[in-house]
Amino acid sequence: MQVNCERLKSNLIELSKIGYNEADGGVYRPGYSDADMQARGWLQDKAQAAGFETFMDGAGNVFFGRGKRDKDVVLMGSHIDSVPAGGMFDGALGVMAALEVMQTLDEHNVDLATPLWAVATAEEEGRFGGMLGAQAIAGKLNPEWLMSAHDADNLYLKDAMAAQELDVMAALEAAWQPEQLKAYLELHIEQGPVLFQENLQIGVVEGISGVFKWIVHLKGKADHAGTAPMDMRSDAFMGLADFAHEIERIIAENGTDKTRITVGKVELKPGYPHTVPGEAVFTIVGRDMDEGVMQEVASACRKALSAIARKHRLMFEYEQTSWLAPSPCSEPLTQLIEEQVQQLGYRYTRMPSGAGHDTQFLSELTEAGLIFIPSVNGVSHAPDEWSHWHDVEMGANVLLHAVLATMKDIGN
Amino acid sequence: MQVNCERLKSNLIELSKIGYNEADGGVYRPGYSDADMQARGWLQDKAQAAGFETFMDGAGNVFFGRGKRDKDVVLMGSHIDSVPAGGMFDGALGVMAALEVMQTLDEHNVDLATPLWAVATAEEEGRFGGMLGAQAIAGKLNPEWLMSAHDADNLYLKDAMAAQELDVMAALEAAWQPEQLKAYLELHIEQGPVLFQENLQIGVVEGISGVFKWIVHLKGKADHAGTAPMDMRSDAFMGLADFAHEIERIIAENGTDKTRITVGKVELKPGYPHTVPGEAVFTIVGRDMDEGVMQEVASACRKALSAIARKHRLMFEYEQTSWLAPSPCSEPLTQLIEEQVQQLGYRYTRMPSGAGHDTQFLSELTEAGLIFIPSVNGVSHAPDEWSHWHDVEMGANVLLHAVLATMKDIGN
Repeated sequence: MQVNCERLKSNLIELSKIGYNEADGGVYRPGYSDADMQARGWLQDKAQAAGFETFMDGAGNVFFGRGKRDKDVVLMGSHIDSVPAGGMFDGALGVMAALEVMQTLDEHNVDLATPLWAVATAEEEGRFGGMLGAQAIAGKLNPEWLMSAHDADNLYLKDAMAAQELDVMAALEAAWQPEQLKAYLELHIEQGPVLFQENLQIGVVEGISGVFKWIVHLKGKADHAGTAPMDMRSDAFMGLADFAHEIERIIAENGTDKTRITVGKVELKPGYPHTVPGEAVFTIVGRDMDEGVMQEVASACRKALSAIARKHRLMFEYEQTSWLAPSPCSEPLTQLIEEQVQQLGYRYTRMPSGAGHDTQFLSELTEAGLIFIPSVNGVSHAPDEWSHWHDVEMGANVLLHAVLATMKDIGN
Repeated sequence: MQVNCERLKSNLIELSKIGYNEADGGVYRPGYSDADMQARGWLQDKAQAAGFETFMDGAGNVFFGRGKRDKDVVLMGSHIDSVPAGGMFDGALGVMAALEVMQTLDEHNVDLATPLWAVATAEEEGRFGGMLGAQAIAGKLNPEWLMSAHDADNLYLKDAMAAQELDVMAALEAAWQPEQLKAYLELHIEQGPVLFQENLQIGVVEGISGVFKWIVHLKGKADHAGTAPMDMRSDAFMGLADFAHEIERIIAENGTDKTRITVGKVELKPGYPHTVPGEAVFTIVGRDMDEGVMQEVASACRKALSAIARKHRLMFEYEQTSWLAPSPCSEPLTQLIEEQVQQLGYRYTRMPSGAGHDTQFLSELTEAGLIFIPSVNGVSHAPDEWSHWHDVEMGANVLLHAVLATMKDIGN
């Protein structure tokens, strides 16, 4: 059994025109924007026309499918909101592939063993600082956060939802109970370079990496770059550079092949060309699939920075602004997906996801599995985000066969 | 023969009250400000009261002394303008010590072999982008620059001077001819940590270091810090960090103990904690006393950056925004100063100056010598700039005896 790639392609292109910006070629469907809500309406129409039931919950999540939802639902899904100037595959792929899977099963008159539903989650991209639709389904929202959340322009979530005739407090009623679900399956683009660079077709995702973020201060002494001899300086930038050089060793000694350490933001003070930097403020973002490894890596960073600070006569301080534990996918479901990929004969690898996905909240509720297809050049969150149609087709076929196998195997 | 340190101290304190700011304890005498002009008037009154001739030239330089100025003048000097929130010794020391030297010679009825004058130069601190008073004396100004120069607030030099009843074009008439001068001697605070840290009393300055400034671009690829594996990145920051690690080697292989290399300003793009930096823009400022060494050091920086760029898959570009050759002091005069210091029994070292001084323009006109005294903790251009009075006294005594020896020795 195979999906109809032409229909899937046509649907994806139709959806991409909602919120499309001619000027930069980007898709603009921020959560609860008019374009986002228009896409949700379009999706409900599309699903109804194909013969499925649909409804929108209190969080703005759009569901479509068939059968009772009280027990053992197999749920597919992803999101249809976008970042500003985003691409046409991020999220949309998983939702339209879910519809395609349902239509394919219909056409083949497959007698489903369990109810099958799909969801287009709301506000996955974090405009208001969360992953709202998936959090609502997983029952991870609270009234205080809902009332205080706002976007970068200080538009409150409650006002943005009210403008779309949604009551923010109704999001609390969108939670599912674990017994309602048998499994959750999501197809998504990788948004990274691994599959593309390694010429693979499918990524079988083991989970979402945990991540910590530090803001580090190294404080030395600002000196005149002409009058201060090299050996009398307390140069905060040289301390930062020394740390950068330890990253490879820290990963080799304490990390895994899934560990990432990134210095993405640096500010030197006073930041004048002719002044030895008296202070360096920078971020460290660390990731791994294993929380114990994350702790080892964080500890190694702390030791390295302490030693470097002593060597360069600097003061070292840091603030840990976030620590998110890894969110592993269901191992039985991941194995099941891997078996389908093998039977389909696609080139694949097991891999972590360094980016967040709806799956990470659904995995707290049920067995959750995540499938990647390649992103050309690893690009995402940009107008030139692209995935080849043959990869889209293979991804949808993996979802199709994973759904069929899940109905038989998981949780029985 | 010794200067009268109590009188010198009293004069320095009196001058420091002109432009003093109670709030931060800093001196505010920017070039051609009311406070600066008030200080120039005060100085002329002071010198006249002590029995010397005085005049202000077209650039605002205040001269005081005795004798004809057509041949073999021994000129002492420094500046009395200040940076905003500056200290009480930067520049002022050299001017008030010059007055003290003249008064001491008077009191000892010394029969001067040659005319002796002193100058308080105008706008040494570069408010308008030059070292105007000294450039005027050295004949290094041109009308185009004078008309277009402005400060950071876009106040034009010509307007600032006009507000003080000075005609900017008259600065062109302030130039001296080489035959008018026998030598120039300047006493200044070190504005760096060397003498203070090494517990020395006097610095015999061999010249002003040459300096080059580069703006360097390393361009890689901005990636999601979660999805891009460490070995698939083109991380511009890691290229910068690698360069920082080469600085010590570059100086050891190509530089001298007077070489300085400083990275003072860094910008990462896009500069987000969760994004691998796609571009690093940073400054390199290099210094040495020998222009050949500067060239070797610059070449080594270029080679290191090229190799690092290849290793990290980055593009490397740089713009050399300035190259100022070293400005050596007169070696005979430097030797003469050193002999006086030895006879006085002060602890001293020969050293370069990493900061610019009036001396660098006067050295293009005549034999020029520069004497440093310690700056406590190396601090300058700040309200807590300080030099101990016993060091002030020793510096003035060196100036006194260098003047006496110069009248006998140099250029004869």
